[in-house]
Amino acid sequence: MTEKTFAFVVYPGLTALDLVGPLQVLNAYAQADPAVRIAVVGENRDTVGTDSPLRIAPSHTFAEIPGPDWVLVPGGGGPTLRALSDATLIGYLRHAAAGAELMMSVCTGSLLLGEAGLLDGRDATTHWMFRDLLRAFGATPVARRWVEDGPVITAAGVSAGIDLALHVVDRLAGPDVARRVQFGIEYDPQPPHGPLDWDAAPADDLRSIRERALRDGLADAPELREKLLAHA
Amino acid sequence: MTEKTFAFVVYPGLTALDLVGPLQVLNAYAQADPAVRIAVVGENRDTVGTDSPLRIAPSHTFAEIPGPDWVLVPGGGGPTLRALSDATLIGYLRHAAAGAELMMSVCTGSLLLGEAGLLDGRDATTHWMFRDLLRAFGATPVARRWVEDGPVITAAGVSAGIDLALHVVDRLAGPDVARRVQFGIEYDPQPPHGPLDWDAAPADDLRSIRERALRDGLADAPELREKLLAHA
Repeated sequence: MTEKTFAFVVYPGLTALDLVGPLQVLNAYAQADPAVRIAVVGENRDTVGTDSPLRIAPSHTFAEIPGPDWVLVPGGGGPTLRALSDATLIGYLRHAAAGAELMMSVCTGSLLLGEAGLLDGRDATTHWMFRDLLRAFGATPVARRWVEDGPVITAAGVSAGIDLALHVVDRLAGPDVARRVQFGIEYDPQPPHGPLDWDAAPADDLRSIRERALRDGLADAPELREKLLAHA
Repeated sequence: MTEKTFAFVVYPGLTALDLVGPLQVLNAYAQADPAVRIAVVGENRDTVGTDSPLRIAPSHTFAEIPGPDWVLVPGGGGPTLRALSDATLIGYLRHAAAGAELMMSVCTGSLLLGEAGLLDGRDATTHWMFRDLLRAFGATPVARRWVEDGPVITAAGVSAGIDLALHVVDRLAGPDVARRVQFGIEYDPQPPHGPLDWDAAPADDLRSIRERALRDGLADAPELREKLLAHA
């Protein structure tokens, strides 16, 4: 039995649901397959903050999981844009990609994959408010729940990571296992107001959130800010 | 301005998505309303494990948030059943309920509300595999995504906490805010295999998970085990 490792990447200030949605799905899959190991990896094992009052801690360091088979990086707001300048994090993604079967992101985590050079010439997606920024990394933005292009799968914003993860279980283990995991997490969504009505997207209301994220996250990275905003 | 506090309860071994789904929804709401404070509360601030390799840490202790306005308790497998015998946790829920506007649970978190005496004579729900156990606490089990009965709202398994939380935002702040939060977390679910087909629920396959949870979680609580199993 060859053990395979699924690495979920942690960095300060991430959006917790980006990480925990897919983690819970893949963890359910791993519990049924002893050949799959789940690791939550960070620069070190210290507890880090998220974009909510919850704090989280990795199970392993980047150095302990140098060659994961599958990698998922979550997104967030300002802190994720700040992480674009985190050479250790970007270096880990770039190095892992050389040996991994699949590189995945949720939400603005795709910008981190872009900075690691993994989206050039690929179709990709991210949180709808940030989608145009993908062009800065040579990607073609696509408005879908998740976008698979070769070994890179990017998901839309926050909650889309759950759908991406079920797709990945389907791809790795087939539809029967994916359906069973879906029953395990009782994923039978019933948003009180139904699915999103994209014609009513509150783009103006939420513009300030995007602007603050770009301003705060890129305050110390003027060149990167220019590069991203050239496509905004 | 009267500040109101939303307390998310942490205990060892919980299912992280039960907690983080609603936390992310309510955190988005709180960011737009300075009168709402989010706290992640635990017996102490130590990092605790979850049912995956992720570890998490509370922002506050139970003692620091003695009178929350809204309380949500997540569920899990064996560790949640073990938590039924955690006098500090159950005492916190019981004490908080005396002053709170809303007491909420996700998944088997409803069993903890039941042990705290909050479900007697009420309609309630939980993870579909554990639904019958609610009768042990005097509740009437209901197969719905979430069930509201007076000040107690219980959600179905794991991912149902996201739907419950959007309902709560709707109730607290109205549909416009709830829809905006839904856009913020881009909750436009697209399960790869569609919604759950309940006629194909893998009850037999998953029975061992339930049995292990009951056996491991209640090994040291034979009377509670008898009480629960009398309704299984």
